[in-house]
Amino acid sequence: MAEPTIDHRGPEFAKLTHELLNDLKQIFKTSGTVVIYPSSGTGAWEASLVNTLSPGDKVLMFETGYFATLWRNMAVKLGLDVDFVPGDWRQGVDPAMVEEKLIEDKKQNIKAVMIVHNETSTGVTSRVNEARKAMDRAGHPALLMVDTISSLGSINYRHDEWRVDVTIGCSQKGLMLPPGLGLNAISDKALKASKSARLPKSYWDWEPMINDNKSGFFPYTPSTNLLYGLRESLSMLFGEGLENVFARHLRLAEATRRAVKTWGLEILCMTPEEYSNSLTAVLMPNGYNADKLREIILKKFNMSLGTGLGKLKGKIFRIGHLGDFNELMLAGTLCGIEMGLVLSNVPFSKGGVTEAIDYLSAHQ
Amino acid sequence: MAEPTIDHRGPEFAKLTHELLNDLKQIFKTSGTVVIYPSSGTGAWEASLVNTLSPGDKVLMFETGYFATLWRNMAVKLGLDVDFVPGDWRQGVDPAMVEEKLIEDKKQNIKAVMIVHNETSTGVTSRVNEARKAMDRAGHPALLMVDTISSLGSINYRHDEWRVDVTIGCSQKGLMLPPGLGLNAISDKALKASKSARLPKSYWDWEPMINDNKSGFFPYTPSTNLLYGLRESLSMLFGEGLENVFARHLRLAEATRRAVKTWGLEILCMTPEEYSNSLTAVLMPNGYNADKLREIILKKFNMSLGTGLGKLKGKIFRIGHLGDFNELMLAGTLCGIEMGLVLSNVPFSKGGVTEAIDYLSAHQ
Amino acid sequence: MAEPTIDHRGPEFAKLTHELLNDLKQIFKTSGTVVIYPSSGTGAWEASLVNTLSPGDKVLMFETGYFATLWRNMAVKLGLDVDFVPGDWRQGVDPAMVEEKLIEDKKQNIKAVMIVHNETSTGVTSRVNEARKAMDRAGHPALLMVDTISSLGSINYRHDEWRVDVTIGCSQKGLMLPPGLGLNAISDKALKASKSARLPKSYWDWEPMINDNKSGFFPYTPSTNLLYGLRESLSMLFGEGLENVFARHLRLAEATRRAVKTWGLEILCMTPEEYSNSLTAVLMPNGYNADKLREIILKKFNMSLGTGLGKLKGKIFRIGHLGDFNELMLAGTLCGIEMGLVLSNVPFSKGGVTEAIDYLSAHQ
Amino acid sequence: MAEPTIDHRGPEFAKLTHELLNDLKQIFKTSGTVVIYPSSGTGAWEASLVNTLSPGDKVLMFETGYFATLWRNMAVKLGLDVDFVPGDWRQGVDPAMVEEKLIEDKKQNIKAVMIVHNETSTGVTSRVNEARKAMDRAGHPALLMVDTISSLGSINYRHDEWRVDVTIGCSQKGLMLPPGLGLNAISDKALKASKSARLPKSYWDWEPMINDNKSGFFPYTPSTNLLYGLRESLSMLFGEGLENVFARHLRLAEATRRAVKTWGLEILCMTPEEYSNSLTAVLMPNGYNADKLREIILKKFNMSLGTGLGKLKGKIFRIGHLGDFNELMLAGTLCGIEMGLVLSNVPFSKGGVTEAIDYLSAHQ
Repeated sequence: MAEPTIDHRGPEFAKLTHELLNDLKQIFKTSGTVVIYPSSGTGAWEASLVNTLSPGDKVLMFETGYFATLWRNMAVKLGLDVDFVPGDWRQGVDPAMVEEKLIEDKKQNIKAVMIVHNETSTGVTSRVNEARKAMDRAGHPALLMVDTISSLGSINYRHDEWRVDVTIGCSQKGLMLPPGLGLNAISDKALKASKSARLPKSYWDWEPMINDNKSGFFPYTPSTNLLYGLRESLSMLFGEGLENVFARHLRLAEATRRAVKTWGLEILCMTPEEYSNSLTAVLMPNGYNADKLREIILKKFNMSLGTGLGKLKGKIFRIGHLGDFNELMLAGTLCGIEMGLVLSNVPFSKGGVTEAIDYLSAHQ
Repeated sequence: MAEPTIDHRGPEFAKLTHELLNDLKQIFKTSGTVVIYPSSGTGAWEASLVNTLSPGDKVLMFETGYFATLWRNMAVKLGLDVDFVPGDWRQGVDPAMVEEKLIEDKKQNIKAVMIVHNETSTGVTSRVNEARKAMDRAGHPALLMVDTISSLGSINYRHDEWRVDVTIGCSQKGLMLPPGLGLNAISDKALKASKSARLPKSYWDWEPMINDNKSGFFPYTPSTNLLYGLRESLSMLFGEGLENVFARHLRLAEATRRAVKTWGLEILCMTPEEYSNSLTAVLMPNGYNADKLREIILKKFNMSLGTGLGKLKGKIFRIGHLGDFNELMLAGTLCGIEMGLVLSNVPFSKGGVTEAIDYLSAHQ
Repeated sequence: MAEPTIDHRGPEFAKLTHELLNDLKQIFKTSGTVVIYPSSGTGAWEASLVNTLSPGDKVLMFETGYFATLWRNMAVKLGLDVDFVPGDWRQGVDPAMVEEKLIEDKKQNIKAVMIVHNETSTGVTSRVNEARKAMDRAGHPALLMVDTISSLGSINYRHDEWRVDVTIGCSQKGLMLPPGLGLNAISDKALKASKSARLPKSYWDWEPMINDNKSGFFPYTPSTNLLYGLRESLSMLFGEGLENVFARHLRLAEATRRAVKTWGLEILCMTPEEYSNSLTAVLMPNGYNADKLREIILKKFNMSLGTGLGKLKGKIFRIGHLGDFNELMLAGTLCGIEMGLVLSNVPFSKGGVTEAIDYLSAHQ
Repeated sequence: MAEPTIDHRGPEFAKLTHELLNDLKQIFKTSGTVVIYPSSGTGAWEASLVNTLSPGDKVLMFETGYFATLWRNMAVKLGLDVDFVPGDWRQGVDPAMVEEKLIEDKKQNIKAVMIVHNETSTGVTSRVNEARKAMDRAGHPALLMVDTISSLGSINYRHDEWRVDVTIGCSQKGLMLPPGLGLNAISDKALKASKSARLPKSYWDWEPMINDNKSGFFPYTPSTNLLYGLRESLSMLFGEGLENVFARHLRLAEATRRAVKTWGLEILCMTPEEYSNSLTAVLMPNGYNADKLREIILKKFNMSLGTGLGKLKGKIFRIGHLGDFNELMLAGTLCGIEMGLVLSNVPFSKGGVTEAIDYLSAHQ
């Protein structure tokens, strides 16, 4: 009664911490180390940088969209020297470019390669495995860091098999929780790099976190309520089976893409093998504003579609189909869009919903 | 701490009771008396009978479906003499038949005419107002009692204007609550009849209920938690506006019916002016079992459609579209049915969903 | 989506029903029949009467308090001939009086003996087992019906061992749920009596209830949400162990009584072997109004004590200590009363709380 | 449906942000700037340092307990030069020492004075206002930074009046929420200092936070659910009145201290004017382990008392009495301790609870 009911210094809490850290390893597909911050996913980005790098270190990043650009900005602010490969926000990281850049770097000044796995702003999924192979071909020792904020628990991802050094995740997408947990999965190579990294750090410092986690505790107050929620969401994912979860997201994403194509609208992502299974960004026809469409759909049908971020503002809308999402929720979503297109007088061909449900019927 | 937080003998609770009873009058559209039982809707039926009638009294009822039949059974068990006009479960109460029966009853033995407003088992809405006029034409003094269990708060209903004597309602349909509240709206004529009614009664007795309600209390423990919930659901209804709620149900129902017709399936209700706006019952083609379809839809899409009750078992499925229901929920529901029809190999024409969303787009 | 999430006609619901009915038998300690109504406990009273008795039947009841009197009133309203043995509301049913009354009844006109096990209005627990033995000694065939509304799941009770014919219970006391479930546990003898009982009944009729329960269903809409809650509360009771639950209530009740005696106040119940373990009613000193005290405690400490009912109005307050209640909740309650006594200028001796916690410390 | 219900890029969310930031100013008693991080309170510490200071900057801190020591450790890790004035963990910051240290610092190398307002580990509240006056007397331009993690919303605090430059707060104590929000209240002087501060920062950077907040948004995903919760808890605080909240905490704290003294136990805090109103730390008699007592109380009464942190491990237990806490909860807590002392065979005098409720009765 006198203290909050969840005592984060008691034995029950320690048990919970151990369970969660173990279970999260299965989600990242790693036997390495996982840490949990009370933070947004952006905090988990910062943790990946300050733990492994030193002021002025060179890193290689790719302009795949809005969030890749924000991550670049963070790296610059923290005093890193970023080689930011430009991009058109419609394609993922080009493995050939990774290889070329690393081969050019004869002195091995590049300390890390940073990739956003699934760009939430564009619906493009970079081929991390191919990037890894490119790094291997270049024989370059740089660390590989990957943002899986909108792919973890939704799209196939393999931290160990792809030899990723730091994977960044969070609570509020595939793990189906409110925002407030930032995650790092950490390879031994990254842990070793952290021993000599000189960016100042305290809140994000892996070392006390990993030490305290051994006995089930945290160096400062964790987000206790979200950790209890995490236990539930991990149970849901394991109950369905992670491979089944991935298959469901693929099925719903493919139905969405078929609807979009039937409507005669263009998917922002230009390369089919990079289509995202967690969200689909759709280009508006020339002269039509996506936010006008979004506003009508919100007002009439109480459904909030994702807006275009940064330079895509007004040009696209985004359909999320990740997390605790099923066939009928998707069908309702697509119907809402088809009705919104009518009400907004956007030129399009009807029948997207029918195409989607045909596909879904045929894949049960 | 020592007693349950909701003290049903305290002043705050009395205030809540008065508010709720007043607000419910607006839902029934009456300036008369409303009472609330801790019971299912079936209990509110029993209350209507035992308060107004005496053993052996003759009543006129109509076989419009499963629930009308259950109400008849109850009347028989309680010792009433029921004239049960047979029906085919595809039509509502025929006003001409009401008039004929009452005119035949020269001695005015019939003490009450009982009508189910909206038959949940069939999706047929009887024209209570027309029945009322028929009773007037016959000049017969029988009470008029109406079951609005699945229409109250969803379909236009007017206790005072239609001079209904007892209206029966409940919590779990249009009032969007869990089951557990039974309602009676009572005319002065019914109150007067209750003074001489001789069926034994105690739990259902209007008198102590109405007396205790005056000071905001109940003669025995009410369903306190549901009463708090009722305050919320009434706020939702008034917030949207009761006429808007009716219009929304009409719009969703019409979209549903257009989908069904496009599929080439038959609506159980034979008379368009009796189509229910809270649910639609659909006949399966000959040789196809509705429960097989329902089972596939439940298994594949986690959606539970209403089963055929009584003699309609296996022959129909029912689509509910009442309560806290909107365009996208309906769209998801119709997509689930269209996919289920494919998966069940039921012969049908695609395009029902498209037809429905065309209609909905055109009526925003 | 289209129908409420809890479908009370589906297979999962049937499984739940079977589990609950089985588990409730353990609470009543019976291998007989249990039925569940969507009603208050008062409804379960009515069910016990209309299922077993006929108009004009004679029954024997005892004026042990407010609720015994209400039950009597119900019996009279339903047309039974009640022999109501007067009482002073400070003692339970006298087994010798039961014996005497039954021996007098040479013609065996008395069809049922009705006892309130734990009088919520007085904190007196009648000795049902002794009453049973008195009936046996008299060799009288009357049914034994017992109201356990505020004792079930809190105080030792044994339907089968004490050969009770109908036990009446409800959801909102020892079962720790909101009001809305009425319960009957039924002996074979009572079931047999129900075959010839002629009071009219439909909602309360055991027969269709028992028939439909066999397949896990109900003859009309049950209180689905409360049934889900019941599963939780039964798990809590079995988790703690029913005997441990009884021991806890005894311990808390005894601590309460010691506090009351230390304060120099009088416990309403005059016979220690009839002290209730679920609540304690306390007499105010002459000239002091209990409701004034209750009002001050509510205002100052936000704690609602039970009021005096009927002729005890203003003369007593009631301390509930049943259900999900523990040592520190009781301690807080007793502190609130001790402070309230000071603030109300009621003459009393301090130290009740100290006495109570001494007792509790010594009995851990 | 397609996106999480709380869209942190929509207009409703912007409105919420503006409301919350305004309301929080009343809690800090400032007309300056407030920012909210998705982080623990420790993150809000880090924000205060990295926004105002540069590598190697000298700061003055005081060893008032466990959390002051953790804050010192953070400052050292981030590369600051900390003058850490030693202390015995039983007293607050000595204003005379503040003055002396600043007068000694002729070159004004000290950039900031850092004080923990209410030491959660010791129950000692430093006199921030006196420290402010000492700084004024010394005529020193250092910033004043204050941790109010366990005092904000519970103990009188005045950011503007006391001319504090950065106040650190969080969600999980006086604001009665789960952990996950870190707060900074910022003076103009601190904002100015942030323009030239050179510690690397991105996540904690005030500038983009303040800029985005202007339009009601955040530079990265905020803890949306906790922000909705914050609206409720601020309403509760304003509903009761902040001065009433402080008076309540004082009353409950004083009652606690009287109980402790009656038990013959020693309060850790040595100076009455530094007694904390949000928690009380109690020294165990020599030879008795506080954690043994805590364990017995947890096991027997399911109440978790605060443990001794750092060098106080086993020597003290802590009684929290902050947030949504009232007289009867405190009484229950004190009863639990008094019973636990008996069960642990700790030598003490009974009567602490009686003393506490006497005090509380006299101060209503």
